[in-house]
Parts: sequence; structure tokens; C-alpha cells
Amino acid sequence: MTKKETTPRSKSKTKAAPPASERAPTSKRVRFDVEERRAQLIALGIQRFARHPYDDVSIDEIADAAGISKGLLYHYFPTKRAFYVAALTESSADLLKRTEPDPTLPPLERAIAGLTRYIDYVDEHAASFSALMRGGIGSDREVASIVDTTREAFVTRILENAVTAIGLEGASLDRLRAVLRGWIGCTEALSLDYLERKVLSRDEVRNALVKLLISHIDVFRQLQAEAGLST
Amino acid sequence: MTKKETTPRSKSKTKAAPPASERAPTSKRVRFDVEERRAQLIALGIQRFARHPYDDVSIDEIADAAGISKGLLYHYFPTKRAFYVAALTESSADLLKRTEPDPTLPPLERAIAGLTRYIDYVDEHAASFSALMRGGIGSDREVASIVDTTREAFVTRILENAVTAIGLEGASLDRLRAVLRGWIGCTEALSLDYLERKVLSRDEVRNALVKLLISHIDVFRQLQAEAGLST
Repeated sequence: MTKKETTPRSKSKTKAAPPASERAPTSKRVRFDVEERRAQLIALGIQRFARHPYDDVSIDEIADAAGISKGLLYHYFPTKRAFYVAALTESSADLLKRTEPDPTLPPLERAIAGLTRYIDYVDEHAASFSALMRGGIGSDREVASIVDTTREAFVTRILENAVTAIGLEGASLDRLRAVLRGWIGCTEALSLDYLERKVLSRDEVRNALVKLLISHIDVFRQLQAEAGLST
Repeated sequence: MTKKETTPRSKSKTKAAPPASERAPTSKRVRFDVEERRAQLIALGIQRFARHPYDDVSIDEIADAAGISKGLLYHYFPTKRAFYVAALTESSADLLKRTEPDPTLPPLERAIAGLTRYIDYVDEHAASFSALMRGGIGSDREVASIVDTTREAFVTRILENAVTAIGLEGASLDRLRAVLRGWIGCTEALSLDYLERKVLSRDEVRNALVKLLISHIDVFRQLQAEAGLST
């Protein structure tokens, strides 16, 4: 935790740092320990990727905003892609944390509160959310797996909250998971549409998603009844 | 239409054609006109991409199956990517054609019939469908635009079929489009889950999607009522 930054092996030709006058006002050279520096860089990355297409985010600009050399940034993240993946991992964890259900609320209010915060997140991370949902940055396996892990975490969370209300067990849990994945697909599509077209308001998107979550659980109950399985 | 194939400009080093014994039994050298050849190659491409990951489909194998030289294939499609895009375009048109609503059926049966054929298609094109939905082949703008155009064609079609039943006009149409995009997202997610996990049966997925389509239209009506707009 208190390990100090080491100077990176110098690259063959490192550009000179821009004169202080050209640096962002925040770029004071502060000496951080390794963990702090990593966290600072990731926070900057999340911020930039949230608002600008991947290709428009430059490593120079990030290093500059952090007040470090490009060489030192590459010491933490060997490529821009690795930096993006680290930012996406952290940002996904942040999304899950921010939408954590409040156990003191009744189920419906819990869903409303979670979805309100989900749409806040979508709004704040418009560029990166669109890019992810459209595969626009040429999704590789690593990126696809972060997205999938996040989706599954949501499915598990909804399942846990729904199960206490419904009372399910065994094989039926997998069947509910399957139906809930449909709702996640619907949530992503409506969120993307909201970002790109703004035909429905924020509140309408949230209200529609709450209603549709209930519809999905209801459809699951109907499938169970039709298959002679327990609801 | 009756334009004859011309010999492609010979590449610097063209591999010799494999001996007849190594070629697929279907690879009889038949002389097609340009349109026929293009259609034959695209049909072969759709078939291969449907069942194998993009990286596992080789241009050699396609040329071989068509009974033509690799050079002639590159005459029609300059790159493997261009060949894939042409196959995807044709395959998407085929999906829309196969799921065309039958106007002699009542609305619910029309939806059931369309979704049955949609899931047939998903089943027959498992590899390409998964890859598309997962951005697994590194979706570029061109691929994303084909997927989007197909989605919008579905939205328009459902809209037209729903509107005759509901009686909508003006701005409300855009609002229904938005909600229907949610259902498309749900359809894609459930289809992908069906391909990858097979927890719900084909018929269950279809039935769930029919019920969820009704739920989406119902949620739209609720949003309209809450906004004081016409249903």
C-alpha cells in the first residue's frame, strides 16, 4: 500500500513534458504511492471515456491531467487498451455498488431506487455506455466478459430479491435467471434508446423498466404454471 | 444479368487448385453468370458463417465448395470481411422475409408465427447470431448498421401491426417505437440465452416473447395514460 512509485524504464524517445503553462490547472506534480496513483489514473480514465469516444481519448491528455509523464502512465498500464479495460472494470464495479438494493425498502421501491441510480449512471457515462452496447470499440473477449459478469451480477441480485418475495428453489431458479436475462436486454436497449433519442423521459424509462420487470417475473410464473412447475 | 464471369487479374502468386480428389464432391466447375455466381457464393457464406466462428471460416474452403479458384472469389469479394458483410446483409434480408407477418392471421397468431420462424432462424444461424449479439467478431460500423437496420425494420413491422389494432398517430408512434426497441433487446437476449444455455425450451422462449410483446404494448399504454396522451 505504501510502495512508492519507481521511475519507469525510460523509453527510447520520451517526449519532453509540456511547459507548466500548457498543463491543465489541476496538474500539480503530487507524489502518490502506487495504489493511490493507480486509483487517480483510473478515475481520470472513467471520466474521459464516459464522455468521449475511445479514439478521442489520448494517453497524453490523461498523463497531463494526472501531472505525470506519459512514461509513468505506461508503467501502470502498458497500452491504452489495458488502461480502458482497467477503467471499465472499475466503472462496472461502481455501477453495481451504486445500484445496491436498499434492504430497508419494500421490493417495489427497492427496484425503483436501483433503476433510478442505474439511469443516472447511464446518463453520466453516455459515451462509454453507448460504445459498449454497440460493440463500437470492437469488443474483444476481455471487454465482453466484463459486460457479461456485470449482467450476471444484476441477474443474481434481482433473483435474490425476487426469490424472497416469490419463494423459489432448485431448477426453477435457472429458469427465472433465463427470463431475467431478457429483462436485462430490454433494460440495455431502452437505456441506449434514451441516450440516443430521448423520446421517453428519464422517469418514463425508469417507470417502464419497473413495470417490465414485474411483467418478466409474471411471464416466468406463467411459464412455470404451463410446465406444471412450482412458481 | 447475363454478364459472364471474367478471369480475375492474376495475383502475383496464386496457389494451384487442389487436386480434384481433395475437393468437395459438390465442387463441379460450373460456369455461372455474374449474378448467379455471387448468389452461390453468398449462399455458401451464409451456410458456413451460420455454423462456424468467423475465424474458422476460410476463403479457400468457400472457393473449393463453389468449385472456383480463390482468385475468382476475391474478384467478387475483395476481402473476407467484405464477403462476411455481403453474407450478413443477405442473411438479414432473409430473416425479415421469413418472418413476414401473415395478414390472414389474427394479430396474436401472427406474432406467434413470426416468432416461431425467428427462433428457427436463430437456431439455424447459431454461430453467426451469437457472434453478432456479442460483438464477437469485433463489430465495425458497417456490421452495426446492418444489425440496426434489421432491428428498425422489425420495430416498424410490429408498429404497423400494432397500430391497426390500437389506433395511434403522431408523436405517440415514436414513443411506441422506443418501447418496442426494449422488446427487441429482450428478444435478442432471450434468443442468445436459448442458444447458449437451453434452460427454456424453444416453445417456452417463443411463448415468453409473445407474452412480453403484449406486456410492452401494455406498458406503453400505461405510459401514455400517465402522460395524458392518447393510447
